[in-house]
Parts: sequence; structure tokens; C-alpha cells
Amino acid sequence: MPKYSIGVDFGTLSGRAVLVEVTTGEELASSTFDYPHAVMDEKLPDGTPLGVDWALQHPQDYLDVFSHTIPDVLRQTGVDPADVIGIGIDFTACTILPVKADGTPLCFLEQYRSCPNAYVKLWKHHAAQDKANRLNEIAESRGETWLKRYGGKISSEWAVPKIWQILDESPEIYQATDFFLEAADWVIWQLTGVQTRNSCTAGYKAMWSKKEGYPSTEFYKALDPRLENLIADKMSTPITPLGAKAGKITPEAARLTGLCPGTAVAVGNVDAHVTVPAVKIDSAGKMLAIMGTSTCHMLISDKEVCVPGICGVVEDGILPGFFGYEAGQSCVGDHFAWFIDNCLPKDYYEEAEKLGMNIHKYLRSKAEKLKVGESGLLALDWWNGNRSVLVDVDLTGMMLGMTLQTKPEEIYRALIEATAYGTRKIIETFRENGVPVEEFYASGGISQKDPMTMQIYADIINMPIHIAGSLQGPALGSAIFGALAAGKEKGGYDSVIEAAGAMGKLREEVYTPIPENVAAYNRLYAEYDRLHDYFGRGENDVMKRLKDLKREAKAQV
Amino acid sequence: MPKYSIGVDFGTLSGRAVLVEVTTGEELASSTFDYPHAVMDEKLPDGTPLGVDWALQHPQDYLDVFSHTIPDVLRQTGVDPADVIGIGIDFTACTILPVKADGTPLCFLEQYRSCPNAYVKLWKHHAAQDKANRLNEIAESRGETWLKRYGGKISSEWAVPKIWQILDESPEIYQATDFFLEAADWVIWQLTGVQTRNSCTAGYKAMWSKKEGYPSTEFYKALDPRLENLIADKMSTPITPLGAKAGKITPEAARLTGLCPGTAVAVGNVDAHVTVPAVKIDSAGKMLAIMGTSTCHMLISDKEVCVPGICGVVEDGILPGFFGYEAGQSCVGDHFAWFIDNCLPKDYYEEAEKLGMNIHKYLRSKAEKLKVGESGLLALDWWNGNRSVLVDVDLTGMMLGMTLQTKPEEIYRALIEATAYGTRKIIETFRENGVPVEEFYASGGISQKDPMTMQIYADIINMPIHIAGSLQGPALGSAIFGALAAGKEKGGYDSVIEAAGAMGKLREEVYTPIPENVAAYNRLYAEYDRLHDYFGRGENDVMKRLKDLKREAKAQV
Repeated sequence: MPKYSIGVDFGTLSGRAVLVEVTTGEELASSTFDYPHAVMDEKLPDGTPLGVDWALQHPQDYLDVFSHTIPDVLRQTGVDPADVIGIGIDFTACTILPVKADGTPLCFLEQYRSCPNAYVKLWKHHAAQDKANRLNEIAESRGETWLKRYGGKISSEWAVPKIWQILDESPEIYQATDFFLEAADWVIWQLTGVQTRNSCTAGYKAMWSKKEGYPSTEFYKALDPRLENLIADKMSTPITPLGAKAGKITPEAARLTGLCPGTAVAVGNVDAHVTVPAVKIDSAGKMLAIMGTSTCHMLISDKEVCVPGICGVVEDGILPGFFGYEAGQSCVGDHFAWFIDNCLPKDYYEEAEKLGMNIHKYLRSKAEKLKVGESGLLALDWWNGNRSVLVDVDLTGMMLGMTLQTKPEEIYRALIEATAYGTRKIIETFRENGVPVEEFYASGGISQKDPMTMQIYADIINMPIHIAGSLQGPALGSAIFGALAAGKEKGGYDSVIEAAGAMGKLREEVYTPIPENVAAYNRLYAEYDRLHDYFGRGENDVMKRLKDLKREAKAQV
Repeated sequence: MPKYSIGVDFGTLSGRAVLVEVTTGEELASSTFDYPHAVMDEKLPDGTPLGVDWALQHPQDYLDVFSHTIPDVLRQTGVDPADVIGIGIDFTACTILPVKADGTPLCFLEQYRSCPNAYVKLWKHHAAQDKANRLNEIAESRGETWLKRYGGKISSEWAVPKIWQILDESPEIYQATDFFLEAADWVIWQLTGVQTRNSCTAGYKAMWSKKEGYPSTEFYKALDPRLENLIADKMSTPITPLGAKAGKITPEAARLTGLCPGTAVAVGNVDAHVTVPAVKIDSAGKMLAIMGTSTCHMLISDKEVCVPGICGVVEDGILPGFFGYEAGQSCVGDHFAWFIDNCLPKDYYEEAEKLGMNIHKYLRSKAEKLKVGESGLLALDWWNGNRSVLVDVDLTGMMLGMTLQTKPEEIYRALIEATAYGTRKIIETFRENGVPVEEFYASGGISQKDPMTMQIYADIINMPIHIAGSLQGPALGSAIFGALAAGKEKGGYDSVIEAAGAMGKLREEVYTPIPENVAAYNRLYAEYDRLHDYFGRGENDVMKRLKDLKREAKAQV
């Protein structure tokens, strides 16, 4: 009798469940549920207004994802819930909420319903930037060694700045909170009745490490005396490595989901990280790029090295038994969308319409005809700052080589190439610091829909690129962890390597570097590299000075 | 009885006559005639195909301008030809043709009608670039001192490369040529029966100077032994300073134009240079910028200095009695047109259409609302290379500071600002080399139609800008030289200062620098200046290397 696993992927606007056959990885059904409250960035459900850069969610939406999508995939496939041996989930991160000792979110309580700080702070809640800045100053001045594991800088999107904002603005909420928890861990609690904390979010978003634990109480005290015992008081749950079983479906969760009580549940995971086994990555030296509006780079390794400018290195942070490195580019597909929205002339739209072509496709049909170097253009991919390896939000875009003959498709292609140079820079930084990158995998929208871009990437990084075989990488990855939580005895797996090998999927086609393009791109990359350092490493801080001027101009009445 | 003067301006596609009252400068009538042969860049009238970068004209078109436009302005105004005391002309330059000893263009002769090298080579004929390159190498290796007067480089648009091309490709034409002549001087010959050569084209386009004459025969011999006696054999006519009288209208020219025989004719002039007195410039230290698709800067001074990167310094080259300096920017309005043609999104066109606004005006309505520095953008104005002060056609455009929030109007404004920084760089280069620039005047389309750009220029160069009062600056300037050729005795003028004072025209409004904008632009200019040198003076020759790559890519099959 075949066995099945379910993966649930919690995104920014919806949750999606996928039901997967455990021996083959075949995805038999999927079901999506849009969060009724979506992203709350202007007001709470009762009309309470939110400040600038806020982004909240409602935890009831997550429960509704379970109650809608899991019964739906069971219904669609007719699979007997008894044959579903495990379930795994992944979530956006750091997406964090304050809860009571029994797991009740504070925002569920009548008295806090109008208090913004009682709700889930979504990953892209940016209203704690001042706290992040302060945290970085203090950490640096104290010489906190853990800072190096995060490339030298903590983001305002991470846990402590968000918690500190709650304390600062709503001390009564902070007081009333028994636990601050990642939403990933909270939904697992709702399924199993057991509170866990996964090593991935704890490591990447809460400054925890397997060897050293959390930063010291002195550090938290230096931030704010009231934070001194944050960890002991409100985050003390032990950390569970990825790949472990969090618990079993409770009778209550069984009623919610239609699964059988006792079904194995994996510890929570993060959307990007969980995709790694979904592309069959099973050993050190393999990098996965998840390419969409921005790109995340996931690399597993058997050694821990402090690589400057990466987002983090966490033991057991991606695959159990490995050190997981995360790096990123803040703006990839967003570059191309910006260009199409702001720079594409009218006649291109008219021509595309005449040909009945999508505008992206029309533009690509022109850009793909260009030879490497033919445009004479070169860009730095910093339209949204630089996440890796410079970790500097104040860097901005640059392009040069324009002439009166420069065409839109040439600019478009130069932007694509710039993001590929950025990826190469990340790869080279890992290598220079002794972390091998030997194979390259890609998932995400761009990898699936844009062969021109993928070939450009292969030529620029000079590595074959393997493409994810599933359109639902995170959900498939979660299902893999679900099968792992169930274990071999129940028809699942005891090792993630084995599970990834059986259930992970790659497309047959591989993008292979074309030698003459590689040679030309090597020359172009040398130019990128030099300008990258010139503008990015302090030789000419013109971009920062222009940003200062911009701020001053905007501050004028 | 009022007296009149006629100015005729020979442009790239048409000629225009203006009839001007001599005491007031009032323009009573104008008339334009489009050249029937326009610019021949694909084939001769008989179908003979032309090569890449060729640009020819037919001299009959120039005679047709006289026969159409002068009778027309006389007819329009009812002015008695006897009251027209003088005529002046200006021409594009270097626009050059081979003629027989009697002034007959070789292309008028049946046997040369199908020979491209027998026709007029228009200023923008660029097919002699290889000759210019060779000439510069040879001049430099020989240590020719006159090279410094031209900022160190001779353009392929100038006389000797064009003549050398004729010799090289069509030695029989070279042999049959009695004189190589600027079209400016040829049309004067047709009016007066006297061959003259004006100091302006001889100085700026044929490497002549009042003190040193032409380069030595050794130099010409070094180019090609057959060129050794080029000057003595085919260009020996003495040079006549601007402001002089070339001669009088012949009976034949009287029949052609409707003017009286004996009417004074000024020596030929160049369109940009002739505009200087038309804006009342009458003393040293005053710069005129003629702002259109590209910009020419004309500066008069009482001293001769070698200023690096200017296009030339010529005694009597702009106004008699002064040293005239020419500098230029290869791409000004062309930048803005490129942007509008290649980078402006569809919704901007739609919105402009909805508002019933011209797209340029619509874009300006948005750009003019931006505060200085607010866009965070900075550009180098090199979309068509850099004419002054770097004299380098292989430089290309650069822009930085883009973010995902960057709007088209911000890019547009940054391009405008870049051209103003380029002008400031030219002004500062003159000043650093001891040539004062104390007042600034502007003419040309941009100066008349674009108040936002003019205010930006005033703020960036931190000088008030005076605007030409005539829409037909060159033709008015030519009429001023016509009145000068006639002399006081005939009701004209004996000095160009006096003539410019009476007949030149400025608008009442002056663009005055706004102190807070000046302060902000000083900071932005410092950034421009640094990047100008970084990319333009060899610190990082990335633009040239990209151009090499581009050439290689284009050369691939």
C-alpha cells in the first residue's frame, strides 16, 4: 500500500498543501488557501491604524490554511488519511508572535485585540529598523563574536529587533507574553500540542547556535535592562534540529485537518531552506538559488567558516548534520519588473500586442538575440541595496556603457547579467573563504520560466545549472521532512539524504555553460568585480553621499 | 531712409534668409528653402551607392537657397534692394568641396557626376575616421605644436582627413581639383566672383593660425607624399579675417538674388560662431552656449592659451580682434530624445495624451517638481562620447543611484543635470587654464523652449544666464556681419562691437542662480567631477574595454 506525506507551505499571502507519494515524490494534489486577512499594513481588523513600515498577520489565517487545504488534498486524491504517515510545514521567517503559556496568541484575547503589537509581525515588517541599528552598534561595540556568523550585521527583519519594538512600544504586551515564537513553531504546536523551536529559525533569525547557544544576558541587558532575561523568560524552549519529529497530530488537530491522530509531524522549517532536499541536494558543496523577486542562496557544507557578507551559517540549519549557509540578493526579478514598469517605451508594448505576446516574452525574444558583450553595457545589481556580500542597504544601482544607439532590450539584458554577476560574487566569496561550491541548483519562478536568464547564469558562473523538478519546491520539501518525521518503520525515511534522493525532483535538462560565452563573461565579470569594490567597499562612497542628499532634499518642506 | 542687411544661414537640411533693419536689429522677414538633395548618405542622384558613414551634399542646392529665399524676403517686406546695404552668410563646417580654378564644383562636370568624392562632404561625413586617426598619430609622433591649439586631437570631420580620403580613394579627383574650399567660402565666391577663405573655418577646421599659418609641408608629406604641396597647390588663397568685406554682389549674383550689383558681401562664417554678436557679446570673458541636439561653446578672450580638451583657439575666429575658443558637448538634446524614445513607459504617454500635453512637456511638468538631489541619481553625459574636455569618442554613458522607486522623470532630470555638469566642467577648465569666463549666454532650441533646463544650468554653473532674443541667431549674426561689410559710410557699421550692440538681441528675462540649489548642486558636481576623472582620465578604462568587447561581439558572424 503506498504511503503519503503532506507538506504545507505558508507564504506571504496564502498557504498551500501538497500531498506526495513517499517512495516516488509524485505530487498527487495541491490546494491553496488565501489568508483572509492577507498582510495588514494599514489597519487592524477593527480599524486601528498601523504606522509606516508595519506588516502584520492574523494567526487564525494559518489555522484556516490547515482546515481548508489538508481536507481538500485528501478529498481530491481519495487517499485514506491512515496512509498519510507524516506532515511537514515551512513558513516565511522571521515571522513572529507573542503567545500565552498555553499557546494562545495575545491577539486572540479580547483585551489585546486593538493592540498592533499583539499580532504576528510578518517577515517584511520593517518598523523596527531603529532597533536593529541600535542592536548592531551595541553588538559591535561589545565585540560580540556571534555577529561574524551573520556577516557582521543583524537585519531589522529578525526576531530581537521585533521583540524589542514590542517591549518599547507596548510594555504591557511584553509583560503579558509567556513566549515569543516563530509562526513556523506556533503552527507545529497547534498540530502536536507540543512547543518546539526549530534550529533553522533559531539559528538564522534569533542569533542562536548549536555550539554557543544564544547571546549572553549581558548583551540583552545592554540593549535594554528589561531584556536581560528575554531568553530564560520567554524563549527558553530547547532547540530541535531540522529533520526531527516535533510530535504527533492531536485529536483536536485531527478534527481540524482530517488527518489521523498520531500522524508524525516534523519540526517547523523555513520556505527557502526546506527547498534544498526538494532538488535532491544531499551532500556538501551544493548550492541552491531560489530565484524570484529576490534570490536566496542556500549552501550546505561540512565545515563552519565565518564568510564575510553572508546572511548566516547555522549548524543543522538546512539539512541535519551539515552547516547551512544562507546568502542573498535583495532584488532580482524586481530589477526586471522595475525596468518594464519604468523604462519600456510605448512602441514595445504596441509591437508585443500586435504579435499577441506577453511583454516579458517579447522583450526576451529581442534580448536573447544579443551576443555576449554586444550591448557594451554593464550594471551593478543594487537597485534594492546589496544583501550579500556587502550587506549594505544604502548602495544603489549603476549602469554604464550607454550610447545613443542603446536599445531597451540591451538594458534589460544588462540588468539580468548584473544579477548573475552578483551570484558569481557570492559563490566566489564562499570559495575564497574555504567553503567549496561545486554544484549549482535553481528553483523559483525565474528558473522555471526564463531559459534565457538561466543560460546567462550558467555562462556567467561557469557551472552547469540543475533546475528544480517541482513547481512547489517548498511544499515538496516540507513533505520530505514529513516523511522523515514518520521514519522508515512507518514507511518513511530515517535519513534526509535518503528522503531527498527518493522524493526530490530535478528536471532532465541542465543549463550547460557555453565556452565562448564563458570567456567573454569572464572579461565582463572582471569589470563588474572592480566596480563592485570601487563603489561598494569605500573607495568612492558616492552612492551613500547621494542617499544623504536625497534624504536631506526629502526632509525639506 | 532705413537700411537693411540680409543674413543667410546654411544649415544641414535647409537654408534660411532673414532681412534685418540695420539700426535696430529688427527682423522683418525670413524665408526657408529645403535643399532638394538634402543629405545624401545612401546614394548619389544617379543612384551610385555610398559607403557607410558617408554624408554628401549638392552645391546646386546652395545656389537655389539664394535664388529662392532672398527674393522672397524682399517680396515679403517690399524693401527696395537698393536699401539692402550688405549680406552675410554662415554655414555648417567643415563642409568642403573640390572645385576648378573658376569655382566650378567638380560634381557639376559630366565626367565626375557619378563619383562620390567629387561632391560636397558635409560636416557629418564620418567616413574619413581612419585618416583622422592616422593624422593624429603622425602629428603626435612628430611633436606638431599646433596640435595643442585643438586640445590635442583633430576630428575626422575636419578638412584634411576629408581631403586625404579623396586623394586616397579617387586620386583622379584630387588631381583635377584646383581648390579645396569650404562651402562657406564657395557661396561667397558665387556672390562676389572673388575667392576668399575666412579665418574661422581655416582656423578651426584646417589647422591654420594667424601667427603660424598652416602646418609645414613636411607634415603633409609625412601623411602622404602626394599631399606635400596641398596648401601651396590647392589651398593657397590668403585668409581673410571675420568682419571683413569679401567683395560685392556681381551682376550675375544680382540676377540670382534680386539684390543690387555692388551690395557689400561679408566673408563666410560658421553657424555657431556667427551667433556670438547676435546675443550682443562684445567683450572678452563672455561665453555663448548654443544648445540643441549637441552644444557648442563659444568664448572670446584677449589672450591665447592652450586649454586642454577644447576644440580650438583661433585668432579672429569668432570676433575680429579677439581670440575665439570653441568647446563642445557631443550630445545634449540627443540625450533627452534618446531617453524619451527608448526609456519612457507606456502609461506616461497615455497620461500625457489624456491631458492633451506634448510628452516632453508632460515629463518636464513632473521633473520640475523634484528638489535638487531628491532623485539620488547622478549621470555622466557621455552617451555620444565626450568632445570637451576629454576629447574621447569611446567614452559612454553612466548613471548611478537607481532604486526600485526611481521614476522616469528622475532619470530624465538626471540626464539634463549631467549635461549641465559637462558645461560646468568646460567652464572650469577654461578658468583653471587662465581664460576667464565671466558671463554666460545661451541660444538654440533648448534655451528658448525649456525654462526648467535653463534654471538647472544657472544653478549648476552658478552664473546668471542671458537668453538670445532672436529665434534665428545664426541668420541674425550673418546680417550683423553683412552690415559690418557695408561699413558706416553706407549706413552700416565699422566695428563688430558697435554692430552687435545695435543689432544683437537678448530676452529681458535672465535665469538667476537660486542659492540653495547652487549649494546642493555644488555637492553633486563634486561627485560628477570625481567620476568624470575616474572613468575619463584612465583610472578605470572600463568604458573602452566594454567598447572593445562590443566591437568583437559585433564582428562575430
